[in-house]
Amino acid sequence: MVTVYSAPNTRAIRVIWVLEEIGAKAEIKSMPYPPRQHAPDYFAVNPTGMVPLLIDGEVRLSESMAICDYLATKHGSPLVVPPNDPERPQFLQWLWYGESTLMTPLSRLNIVRQVERQFERKGGPEVEAIIAGARDHVGERLKMLEQRLEGRDFLAAGRLTLADISVSYPLHLVGMLGVDTLLGPRCVAYRERLRARPAYQRAIAVS
Amino acid sequence: MVTVYSAPNTRAIRVIWVLEEIGAKAEIKSMPYPPRQHAPDYFAVNPTGMVPLLIDGEVRLSESMAICDYLATKHGSPLVVPPNDPERPQFLQWLWYGESTLMTPLSRLNIVRQVERQFERKGGPEVEAIIAGARDHVGERLKMLEQRLEGRDFLAAGRLTLADISVSYPLHLVGMLGVDTLLGPRCVAYRERLRARPAYQRAIAVS
Repeated sequence: MVTVYSAPNTRAIRVIWVLEEIGAKAEIKSMPYPPRQHAPDYFAVNPTGMVPLLIDGEVRLSESMAICDYLATKHGSPLVVPPNDPERPQFLQWLWYGESTLMTPLSRLNIVRQVERQFERKGGPEVEAIIAGARDHVGERLKMLEQRLEGRDFLAAGRLTLADISVSYPLHLVGMLGVDTLLGPRCVAYRERLRARPAYQRAIAVS
Repeated sequence: MVTVYSAPNTRAIRVIWVLEEIGAKAEIKSMPYPPRQHAPDYFAVNPTGMVPLLIDGEVRLSESMAICDYLATKHGSPLVVPPNDPERPQFLQWLWYGESTLMTPLSRLNIVRQVERQFERKGGPEVEAIIAGARDHVGERLKMLEQRLEGRDFLAAGRLTLADISVSYPLHLVGMLGVDTLLGPRCVAYRERLRARPAYQRAIAVS
């Protein structure tokens, strides 16, 4: 039996969503966020305190997209676009976009907001500049997604793939961070389409 | 002929390194960093101004690790650990670690340093907290790498793979950002081992 350590609103959503889409059973161990604060025993399991973490026999993985690829490949799922498929290059592009190009400025915005909460005040002009720069990056990078979604329901191969599951997490963070105004109309409709999937809803409920 | 748009000290190093390792020809169009400032004509090619960008006939990719996977797979290179290989899970883990877990706090540190340079002064306590938090993250996440490198020259499959090429870029940034003291002895030796490769040196020279 596969074990997944999870916490709400983390990249663990991706992993549980994949499990739900392929109908694979797993033991989900969900902890309050952040585990490093609310589940100190977890440090004994994972010294960085990060989630997700997958344990499958001898296999132990902590990168959410590595886990998604591992699980989907293990189950022969069409969530992976195979190397010989003509859509493979675009699959790879959007798979990485979701964790690199789009995620990086959102992660920065998230951390700066956390620091502002710690200090219980707005930061000075430097902090404002960091926030404005991150918002600008998110906005311009979402335009790439808006363009890609012209005439498409999914990012590659005309079906739900790991590329969509990758991009879904930064789109979730866009909502969490209250910057939904940066989404174009196709991005809004796309996020709704993903959220409407029963497997996604179960993943959100369980994570 | 493949075209790669590049700039020094960017993720384009990864792409050119892959091309050099597999001995594939390409036209490298290198611009001063940042292209958005020094090569405004580039916006007509790539509206985000980001590098790398690969153009190969109809294929157009801007995520560095997507490009690396695309090129290595196209050439049947052993830089990719195939899905049926028992080392595949660890290959995936470190492939994503290099752009997600390790890269995210380094990217944050990089941006905050840029903002401090713009303001020509040290930021206030919030900026100090963001920098300290990023350094802590980099330090604790490098410990994962230090542990993985025990008894290993490379991260997966006992040979150079895209996982190493992924991780090489954040290790390059560690040097650029002057936080080398966060590297353990195995990480230092590993970075030297990667830097000693002729293909890496050519990539640094050309990018």
